[in-house]
Amino acid sequence: MVRTVLLSLGGNAILPGRGAGTIDEQFRITRASMVHVADLLESGARVILTHGNGPIVGNILLRNELAKDRIPPMPLDVCGADSQGGIGYMIQQVLQNVLRERRLDIPVATVLTQVVVDAADPAFNHPTKPIGPFYSEKEAKDLSQRLGWTLVEDSGRGMRRVVPSPRPIRIVEEQAIRTLFASGCAVIAAGGGGIPVIEEDGRLRGVEAVIDKDRTAILLATSVGARAVVNVTAIDQVAVDFGRPSQRNIDVMDLDEARAWHAEGQFPAGSMGPKVEAAIQFLEDGGEEALITSPPLIALAMRGLAGTRIVQPARRAAPTA
Amino acid sequence: MVRTVLLSLGGNAILPGRGAGTIDEQFRITRASMVHVADLLESGARVILTHGNGPIVGNILLRNELAKDRIPPMPLDVCGADSQGGIGYMIQQVLQNVLRERRLDIPVATVLTQVVVDAADPAFNHPTKPIGPFYSEKEAKDLSQRLGWTLVEDSGRGMRRVVPSPRPIRIVEEQAIRTLFASGCAVIAAGGGGIPVIEEDGRLRGVEAVIDKDRTAILLATSVGARAVVNVTAIDQVAVDFGRPSQRNIDVMDLDEARAWHAEGQFPAGSMGPKVEAAIQFLEDGGEEALITSPPLIALAMRGLAGTRIVQPARRAAPTA
Repeated sequence: MVRTVLLSLGGNAILPGRGAGTIDEQFRITRASMVHVADLLESGARVILTHGNGPIVGNILLRNELAKDRIPPMPLDVCGADSQGGIGYMIQQVLQNVLRERRLDIPVATVLTQVVVDAADPAFNHPTKPIGPFYSEKEAKDLSQRLGWTLVEDSGRGMRRVVPSPRPIRIVEEQAIRTLFASGCAVIAAGGGGIPVIEEDGRLRGVEAVIDKDRTAILLATSVGARAVVNVTAIDQVAVDFGRPSQRNIDVMDLDEARAWHAEGQFPAGSMGPKVEAAIQFLEDGGEEALITSPPLIALAMRGLAGTRIVQPARRAAPTA
Repeated sequence: MVRTVLLSLGGNAILPGRGAGTIDEQFRITRASMVHVADLLESGARVILTHGNGPIVGNILLRNELAKDRIPPMPLDVCGADSQGGIGYMIQQVLQNVLRERRLDIPVATVLTQVVVDAADPAFNHPTKPIGPFYSEKEAKDLSQRLGWTLVEDSGRGMRRVVPSPRPIRIVEEQAIRTLFASGCAVIAAGGGGIPVIEEDGRLRGVEAVIDKDRTAILLATSVGARAVVNVTAIDQVAVDFGRPSQRNIDVMDLDEARAWHAEGQFPAGSMGPKVEAAIQFLEDGGEEALITSPPLIALAMRGLAGTRIVQPARRAAPTA
């Protein structure tokens, strides 16, 4: 049976450590990841990809800022769209090249993706997602007064703008993505969680927000009928009791364990929390399994030999042969 | 019979006059154009769109430049990809909104597009296309020495970088574009002439060049079997003897007349020349008709009531009923 898999690529799959680095570094890191994506495609799986955009959209925002006296700044939705263009191009070209080297005739394409959020989402009253450059207290006060931004202290490095992180409701370009995917294409979509838009009298309008990419990934997986999602991140496996003597890495947890551990606070909001939450959501929506692992372990994880698998309770007990 | 039409949108269809303006202005101008694109769709035509990116990629380059001491600059291929993201997003959202208002259920999607050029194209030895900001003589000398750029005096406003403008050979994402188009989607593709890539040992690599969007538009039209192309530009009609007492606007010219007038130098390189050349190419490749007109006249031009039509010699004499 052909497996349909969604890969959600974290920053470390395309960027060199902290920050975005140079373009050459980005292409090199992306290539290292795409070799493993190609392994998965070569094994016969159908793959749809999505990706984060954090440090890259941060650079776009900083450039925007530094040029603001000469060029009208772009709002956040347009910055996000730009980043889908630049990152999508890089991922698609690198994956195309790896597939060409292996003589695998699988088309790859990137679809610019808007994602509808609810204008009444409570997140709009509680911005939490830090974006863009750091500012001094004085600059922050000025930006807050002049542009109505909310700024908070971030990681001891200064003040930073925070924007709402509303729940994704619907992928605007879902039909195009499904069509392309059904035709055999490896589709790249909804980069950076998608460009957030609200519906006003039936019309779409971009908003200043950032959608959590792991949440959008679940919508995307469901759109194309993916039975498995792989969250490709900086760690090989999820651990419980992280940093304590009792720490242990988890090979498999079922939905009930995932919920219980998550409720216990085993998975912090700043790291594994959103990924485990997205996995829980995916399984609750009927998905088969969610995996969390690092780029080199993608193909092994799909064979049950690496990473952390989160599965339906009934399936865990089932014989694997 | 359903007509398949390629629309090649010039800067004036999405931007407010000289320069890129604010994002609000861009959305407003784009909306004015998309109303006419929707007319065409509503009349039953199948539409594929491409667009220029000049002033917008110019802004991206200038931001790049102003931030270069803090963020590694992006090469031109990545800047072009970013611009496909931002402009594609704007066009697709605006067109989706106009179609929603009319209750027309036509999906719209943007495909990030790379276009293969020949690494041996003579254009690489003769850069001609000005891009990005203007520099002083001193800055230009420094950039030339430090980065190997070619800079030339441009329109009396200072020195400007020029890059090669090689011929487009093949659209890398052709299959994805055809699939989406065949499914009924209004596809936006190959913005800015496409991201130029060369093939090295079978691998794609972005290059510092700009492909003429009107040339790429012809490739795109042929890819999806479009019988007509409309070059949407700043003027309603093409004229001969432009600026002389004998000036006359042209409703229809056939391929032979177009070639003859072009050979006479009736269509300058900086304005109508490339558009008439692209029209000639399209007809030589078997296209039915090429139109040149302004945004408000798109639908009328398609009905033969406005703009300049360039047609096959045999067809001109044929009865229209």
